[in-house]
Amino acid sequence: MATIRPQLSRCVRQAVCRASNRPFSSSRQQLQLPVPIAHILDKGPADAEDVVINGFVRSIRNQKQRSFASIGDGSSLEPLQALLTPEQAQSLTAGTAVRLSGAWKPSPNPKAQSHELHVTGVDVIGAADPTTFPLQKKYQTPEYLRTIPHLRTRLPFNSTLLRFRSACIAEITLALSRDGYTQTHTPIITSSDCEGAGEVFNVGSTHKAPVGENDDGSFFRSPKYLTVSSQLHLEALAQSVGNVWTLSPTFRAEKSDTARHLSEFYMLEIEMSFVEDMNVVMDAAEKLIQCMTRPLLSSRVGREILASKDPNNPHPDEKRPENLRRRWEGILSGPWPRITYTEAIRLLQSSKRKFDHKPEWGSGLQAEHERYIADKVGVEGSPVFVTHYPRSIKPFYMLPAANNNDTAETVECFDLLLPEVCEVVGGSMREYRVEQLLVSMQSNGLIPPGPLSSISDEQLGELKWYVDLRRWGSVPHGGFGLGFDRLLGYLAGVQNIREIVPFPRWVGRCEC
Amino acid sequence: MATIRPQLSRCVRQAVCRASNRPFSSSRQQLQLPVPIAHILDKGPADAEDVVINGFVRSIRNQKQRSFASIGDGSSLEPLQALLTPEQAQSLTAGTAVRLSGAWKPSPNPKAQSHELHVTGVDVIGAADPTTFPLQKKYQTPEYLRTIPHLRTRLPFNSTLLRFRSACIAEITLALSRDGYTQTHTPIITSSDCEGAGEVFNVGSTHKAPVGENDDGSFFRSPKYLTVSSQLHLEALAQSVGNVWTLSPTFRAEKSDTARHLSEFYMLEIEMSFVEDMNVVMDAAEKLIQCMTRPLLSSRVGREILASKDPNNPHPDEKRPENLRRRWEGILSGPWPRITYTEAIRLLQSSKRKFDHKPEWGSGLQAEHERYIADKVGVEGSPVFVTHYPRSIKPFYMLPAANNNDTAETVECFDLLLPEVCEVVGGSMREYRVEQLLVSMQSNGLIPPGPLSSISDEQLGELKWYVDLRRWGSVPHGGFGLGFDRLLGYLAGVQNIREIVPFPRWVGRCEC
Repeated sequence: MATIRPQLSRCVRQAVCRASNRPFSSSRQQLQLPVPIAHILDKGPADAEDVVINGFVRSIRNQKQRSFASIGDGSSLEPLQALLTPEQAQSLTAGTAVRLSGAWKPSPNPKAQSHELHVTGVDVIGAADPTTFPLQKKYQTPEYLRTIPHLRTRLPFNSTLLRFRSACIAEITLALSRDGYTQTHTPIITSSDCEGAGEVFNVGSTHKAPVGENDDGSFFRSPKYLTVSSQLHLEALAQSVGNVWTLSPTFRAEKSDTARHLSEFYMLEIEMSFVEDMNVVMDAAEKLIQCMTRPLLSSRVGREILASKDPNNPHPDEKRPENLRRRWEGILSGPWPRITYTEAIRLLQSSKRKFDHKPEWGSGLQAEHERYIADKVGVEGSPVFVTHYPRSIKPFYMLPAANNNDTAETVECFDLLLPEVCEVVGGSMREYRVEQLLVSMQSNGLIPPGPLSSISDEQLGELKWYVDLRRWGSVPHGGFGLGFDRLLGYLAGVQNIREIVPFPRWVGRCEC
Repeated sequence: MATIRPQLSRCVRQAVCRASNRPFSSSRQQLQLPVPIAHILDKGPADAEDVVINGFVRSIRNQKQRSFASIGDGSSLEPLQALLTPEQAQSLTAGTAVRLSGAWKPSPNPKAQSHELHVTGVDVIGAADPTTFPLQKKYQTPEYLRTIPHLRTRLPFNSTLLRFRSACIAEITLALSRDGYTQTHTPIITSSDCEGAGEVFNVGSTHKAPVGENDDGSFFRSPKYLTVSSQLHLEALAQSVGNVWTLSPTFRAEKSDTARHLSEFYMLEIEMSFVEDMNVVMDAAEKLIQCMTRPLLSSRVGREILASKDPNNPHPDEKRPENLRRRWEGILSGPWPRITYTEAIRLLQSSKRKFDHKPEWGSGLQAEHERYIADKVGVEGSPVFVTHYPRSIKPFYMLPAANNNDTAETVECFDLLLPEVCEVVGGSMREYRVEQLLVSMQSNGLIPPGPLSSISDEQLGELKWYVDLRRWGSVPHGGFGLGFDRLLGYLAGVQNIREIVPFPRWVGRCEC
């Protein structure tokens, strides 16, 4: 029984003592956590008895005298090989959860695996009926697997993607913390729509007012939405604490049914304070993406991504490792080319390529245009920054270009184009001068025209606070948003963003 | 002009060259970021010329011959003191954004500050009209400041809280990564309501169908909600990849108007796989909270929290540092007492204290009960685990207590009570056996009564996938959710959760 500290009053001591049938402070007993299979594969002793592993049967191969089971627990793409007697293997089928104990011995076939577990004890923890188990060994279409996201992450490649996401978050958190950025939690339910356009989700409450109380039916007293970007809030925080970032869920109610769009996705956003040169912001984006990429060259998860098969492709793609390496090296080569939108349009117009959409100054770049630019301007597979787009196709908050000799008015903004995948980052310098911001809001139709002095708080509406940020101690600042899921997909060679997110949401689809 | 790599095609090279008026790859030029004031205060050279700082005037004191300005940039609670001539100080008022250059020299009054900036150059970046600036130096009520969350974080204490949150996230991320946990992004828009009760926000779309298309008005084809807990999804992921965690926004549409509740808050949730003993899960919670607390004893932000004043209190609280140290030491003392709910009820019943709610076995613990238990059972201000609550007051998914000699049926669950603040963590072992889960769902009225074999997928509805997790390779598992904002408030000595979150949302209130 655990010792009770003398400081406890007698009354409490009695109460606590009555708990003696349960461990009172068992943390003193150093409870053991299961050892992940990856640890055993990486650091397993050369020849050891009494190894215990927990995992799931991936496959089983029965011979006359013995059986071989591949066991995985999600910690490793590669399975652990267990050697059993046919009797021990009897109750094991694909998907079964087991605890196996035995001796860890060198394998007679070191090319396949260095060691294998000679099983002495089998403990079936959770059976899996092979007649109904949905993750059969045969190839299954991505479309089918998307209907069972709660099971699909059990597949070795999908659990590798989970670990890859986790490793990236850790790398970023560490790097940005080291560089003095403050990580913030920006709100999800918001009043304003950052882009001034786009489809938003609205938020309501099912709450019924108690009898006798007045309830206008609206929890927040006015319409609220799911955030489409944390930028506006980050701008407020950057003025408070310096450079800030957030990795936050973001929402678009767009009915896009493509491999690049989700209705709910994670965006990594950075806002930098006291910064006048947009190159500083682009440098930060470049450094951030390199910091996610660099560990892939030497980490376990990096090796696993190279070794894995594209789950979207039933036929092995022999060039996958080579293509992925090229992507990573393209990112790490840096510095990445930076060209203006105007130059990009000239480049497109001088090309012999037939585009579906004719490239024209003043129109947005289409995916086909972006691919062409990334391909032609990128150096050895590097991404490309395209800067200084026309003001007319960009949101109201962007700062006009200062040193501007383009053919018409442009703004201090940039998109980062990845080869094949296209836009993955969008950023800009923000208009930090209150008069100019108001004029821009007028010309974007967000507030009525007329003398600035006549604009009332009511007319500013949900953007009053954003204008406020410029009223007292406003400073030059800029930032960007990075499509986190999209970048993960690029780095891991997953073509459809629906495979990179464990529970993807898009139009008509919200499983689990 | 930047050198163009020879690999570029001539066409691209021309395009790129035309960009020569803009730095093409300026990252080679090593652009400098502003140096935070905290760096200068911490590591400033003993006596240096040419120091440049960016920041905001916190206050200014004018004497005949010279002026003193306190400058802050959010990187430090303590301001930097700048020494100016009255002419230099003329345009500086509280809130003004400035760039100051000068010499960093030892202060004649080293008790107040070791060094001060002897200003040679003043550059007003953003003026602040003193007649309208909302953050005047006088005491302002928390209620007033909550109406201007976009400005309130500029106050030194509030920006310290931002940095504290950031430091905690980094500590946790590092520690959990080192311990082999996988960080995951669980969905925000969900189909199911984890607790089986409680008020939820629903999610709709303002999208209008294009002419000619059919639109039933529902973006996802069926009602969807903002998540109330990531637990169910984490359970799926824990079966895929082992121990997992998430730090995710969570939502409750409850009309609570208290210092402890928000409609949108961050919850840190952990789910552990292949775990049978709930003490392992409690150990993990204890370790996690200790890992957030330990750095406070030696870090800059820890010292700042001790040195700061409670912003809710216009009168200085002299015991604040002492009380906070006691909280931190109580957490670090561990292991924390673990008593059962049944023992807690006996303790409450044997107390002479008059409770507003009579403690009775079978009812939930009220805040007054929790405070009493934390106070009486906690050792030197430690938190207290209360375990094994009655099944009747807990959700359907909890595992029945195994070694149960309480007066009636209880479940393997725990709440962690913090002194003064009360519940901050709730956790449990989950029912992992499919039949028992279905029976529990029946007795909770989630599915119709009757033989289990007759239950259809339709009847399981939005919980079908959750039941599915138990059908193939189910393993014992458990986890917990930690109210992240609540814990931050406890550690930083902030009484109201609305001050810990930069943009708090609660009933009727969603500013910015």
